[in-house]
Amino acid sequence: MEVIKKAQLAKIACKEWVKLSNSERDHALITMADNIEENSLKIIEANQKDIEKAKEKGISGAMLDRLTLTKERIASMAQGIREISSLPSPLGETIHGKVTNQGLQIYQVRVPLGVVGIIYEARPNVTADAAALCLKSGNAVVLRGGSEAIHSNKMIARLLRDALQKLNLPFDVVQLIEDTDRCQVQQMMRLNGLIDVLIPRGGTGLIKSVIENATVPVIETGAGNCHIYVDYPVDLNEAIKIIENAKLQRPGVCNAVETVLVHEDIASQLLPDLKKRLEERVELRGCEKVRKIIDVAEATEDDWETEYLDLILAIKIVSSLQEAIAHIEKYSTNHSEAILTNDLNNARRFVKEIDSAAVYVNASTRFTDGSEFGMGAEIGISTQKLHARGPMGLTALTSTKFVIYGDNSVRR
Amino acid sequence: MEVIKKAQLAKIACKEWVKLSNSERDHALITMADNIEENSLKIIEANQKDIEKAKEKGISGAMLDRLTLTKERIASMAQGIREISSLPSPLGETIHGKVTNQGLQIYQVRVPLGVVGIIYEARPNVTADAAALCLKSGNAVVLRGGSEAIHSNKMIARLLRDALQKLNLPFDVVQLIEDTDRCQVQQMMRLNGLIDVLIPRGGTGLIKSVIENATVPVIETGAGNCHIYVDYPVDLNEAIKIIENAKLQRPGVCNAVETVLVHEDIASQLLPDLKKRLEERVELRGCEKVRKIIDVAEATEDDWETEYLDLILAIKIVSSLQEAIAHIEKYSTNHSEAILTNDLNNARRFVKEIDSAAVYVNASTRFTDGSEFGMGAEIGISTQKLHARGPMGLTALTSTKFVIYGDNSVRR
Repeated sequence: MEVIKKAQLAKIACKEWVKLSNSERDHALITMADNIEENSLKIIEANQKDIEKAKEKGISGAMLDRLTLTKERIASMAQGIREISSLPSPLGETIHGKVTNQGLQIYQVRVPLGVVGIIYEARPNVTADAAALCLKSGNAVVLRGGSEAIHSNKMIARLLRDALQKLNLPFDVVQLIEDTDRCQVQQMMRLNGLIDVLIPRGGTGLIKSVIENATVPVIETGAGNCHIYVDYPVDLNEAIKIIENAKLQRPGVCNAVETVLVHEDIASQLLPDLKKRLEERVELRGCEKVRKIIDVAEATEDDWETEYLDLILAIKIVSSLQEAIAHIEKYSTNHSEAILTNDLNNARRFVKEIDSAAVYVNASTRFTDGSEFGMGAEIGISTQKLHARGPMGLTALTSTKFVIYGDNSVRR
Repeated sequence: MEVIKKAQLAKIACKEWVKLSNSERDHALITMADNIEENSLKIIEANQKDIEKAKEKGISGAMLDRLTLTKERIASMAQGIREISSLPSPLGETIHGKVTNQGLQIYQVRVPLGVVGIIYEARPNVTADAAALCLKSGNAVVLRGGSEAIHSNKMIARLLRDALQKLNLPFDVVQLIEDTDRCQVQQMMRLNGLIDVLIPRGGTGLIKSVIENATVPVIETGAGNCHIYVDYPVDLNEAIKIIENAKLQRPGVCNAVETVLVHEDIASQLLPDLKKRLEERVELRGCEKVRKIIDVAEATEDDWETEYLDLILAIKIVSSLQEAIAHIEKYSTNHSEAILTNDLNNARRFVKEIDSAAVYVNASTRFTDGSEFGMGAEIGISTQKLHARGPMGLTALTSTKFVIYGDNSVRR
C-alpha cells in the first residue's frame, strides 16, 4: 500500500527533522515558499487539469472557486508559509519545571507529535498550509487531499519536497498520498505506530467517517451550529450590528451564527429592526412567538439542528437565560456561542454554563479563528475536548515529554 | 442498554456538579471517604462473594491478592479519597490570557472534560480512586470494572453515591455498569456525545481492544518495555544500584526496567558485578557478546520485545550511544528510558533523541509515577502523545475553553 510505505518514510524522516535547529527548519520553510512562488506557472498548469476535470463533472460555483489557483492565490500561499516560518517555535518550551521531594530535577518539555496525518477535501492550498504548520512544529506530515485537486496537490507537494532536497534535508517529511482510492484513506486511519495523530479537515461526512473508522487518535475539527443569545438589558443597535456581522461577514464558515435566541422582554423592540436590516440579504425563519412580531417563514425542529453555512438565520424567543442555555445545550455543536448583554451576572452565568470551545460576551462569533486569537495560523478548530479545543495553532501540533535528571537516584 | 441510560444520567448530573464550588466538591469527597470507611464491613462482605467465586474458578496468587479487600486496604482507599480532596483544584485556572490586536479580552480557562469512562480489570480500589479523581476535577464518571470484582465494585459505588445523596448532591455523577456482559463495554466505547473520553486501565489485551473499537476519544495507558542504557564513563556501583532498583523495587509494574543496554567499553567491568548482585533473585538473559563475559541464558528477539513484568532481565552490549538509541527506538513502548552516564554530551543527546514519555539521566525508571512527580495522585500513565503524556494527574482530566469579552466587537 502506498500509504504504509509513505508513512514509514515519514516516520524515519521525522527523526532527522526533529534534530535540526529551529532556524534550519525556518530556512527550509522559506525555501519551500520561494520554490512555490517561483514555479507558480507549473502549479497553475497542474491546477488547470483539475479544473477541466471538475467542469466535465459539472462542478461549478463556490466549489470550483475553492479549487481554482491563480498567481495571486499562489503568492498568498507562499506568503502564508513565510508567515508560519516567522512564528516562534513551540519546540523545547519547558511548560513545567521543578525539583521533586526526592530531589529529582524534572522538566516537562514540548516535543513534536511525530507524524501527523491530514485528510482534507477540495482546497489545494491546504497542502502547503498544513505541511508548513506540521514542519514548523517539528513533525512530518502525510497528506491525503481530495481527488478533485490531485494534480494541483501533486505539484505543490513536489515543489515542497524539491526545496527540502535542494537543501539536503530529509524531504520525506512531506508525503502526499497520490492514489485517490478510498482504501488508502481507510488504511491511513489504522496506521497506529506510524501515524501519531489524524486531523480531518472538511465536511461533516468526512469527519464522521474518520471518527467512526480511525484507530489512530483523531482531533475532531469542525461543525459549528453557533448561537447568539440577546439578553435584556442590551444595546439594541450594537446587538443588531453583531448579529449582522456574525451572519454576513462570511456566511459559509463554521463560526458564522446560525440561530439567534432573543429574550422575550426585548423581542418586540429588536425583531422589527433586525428584520429590516437583514431581510434583503438573509432568509429569516422564526418560532411561533417570533412570527407574531415579524412576518417570517416558520422555523421547525430541523432549523434548530442545522448548520446552514448559508444566508439563512433561525430566530427563537426565549423567556429566560436558563431557557437560552438549555436550547444551546440541546442543539449546539459546542463551537462558538455568544451572549449580548449588559447584565454582569447573566454574562458570568452564560460563560460558566455554556460548554463550548469559545464563549463570547458582547462580540461576534466570527472571531473564533487562530489568527484572530493571535496564534498566527491555525491547523483547524477543534470541537472535541481532548488535547486541543478551539482554534489550534502550533502548540496543538506538539506533545510533551518529561525529562528527569537525578543524582544516581533510586526509588524508595 | 444499561450503559446508555447511565451515561445519560451522568451527562445530566455533571452539568450540576460543575456548578458547585471547589469546597463543596471537596466536602463531598470527604463524606464519600467517611462513608467507605464506616461501612468497611459491608465492603468486606461483598468482597467475600467475589473471592469465593474467584477461588471456585481456580484464581490464586497475585490475582487473588489484588482482588482482596481488608479493613486496612479499605482505610487506605478512604485515605486516598481524602488526599485527592485536599489537592488544589485544576478548575478555573486561566492558562493564557491576553488582549488581542482587535481589543478582545481572551482567557483560556480550565474546565472539566464532562463524562469520563473508565474501563478496568480486577482491582476494586480503582472504583473509589478513579471516581474521586474524576469528581475532584469536576467530571462525572462511568465505571466499568471487571466481572471478578463486581460485588465489591457495586458496594463501593453504592456507598459513594449514598454519600452524595445524603448531601443532596447529584449522585448520578457516579455510575457503575453492573451488567458484566461484553456488549455493555462495546456500546460504551461508541457513546460519542455522552462519554467525552475513555481511559482503559489494565492489561495489553484490554487496551488494544479499546483502541480498536472505540469511536469515543481514548487515552492509551500502559505498557512499559523500559530500558536503561549504561554509557561510558559511568560510576559502576551507582549504575548497579540503579539497575537493581529499577528491576527489583517492584518488578510487576510498567515502569520497571526490562532490558539493560551496556556500552562495550565497560561491559567487562560491569557485567560480573551486576550478575553477582542480581543472579539470586533475577533470571538474566544476554546477547551473544554478554554471554562471552558472564554465563547467563540466551536472549532472543522475543526478549527485546517483551515487557516481562517479572524477575527477568535482558542484557545487550552495544558499541555506541547511537546503537543504544536505535535499539530503544525499535523495541521500546515509549514509556520510560534512562541513561546512566557522566558524559554531558551523551546525556543531552539521549534526552533529545529518545522519544518516550519519561527520559531519565542517572535515575531509576521506577520514578515514573504521578505521586513521585508531585501530582498528588494519578489516573494512569499515558503512553500516547495526544492530550496527556506520562503520569496523568488532575489536569489530564480537564479540557479548556476560550472565554472572550468584547466591547460589542465585530470582525472586519
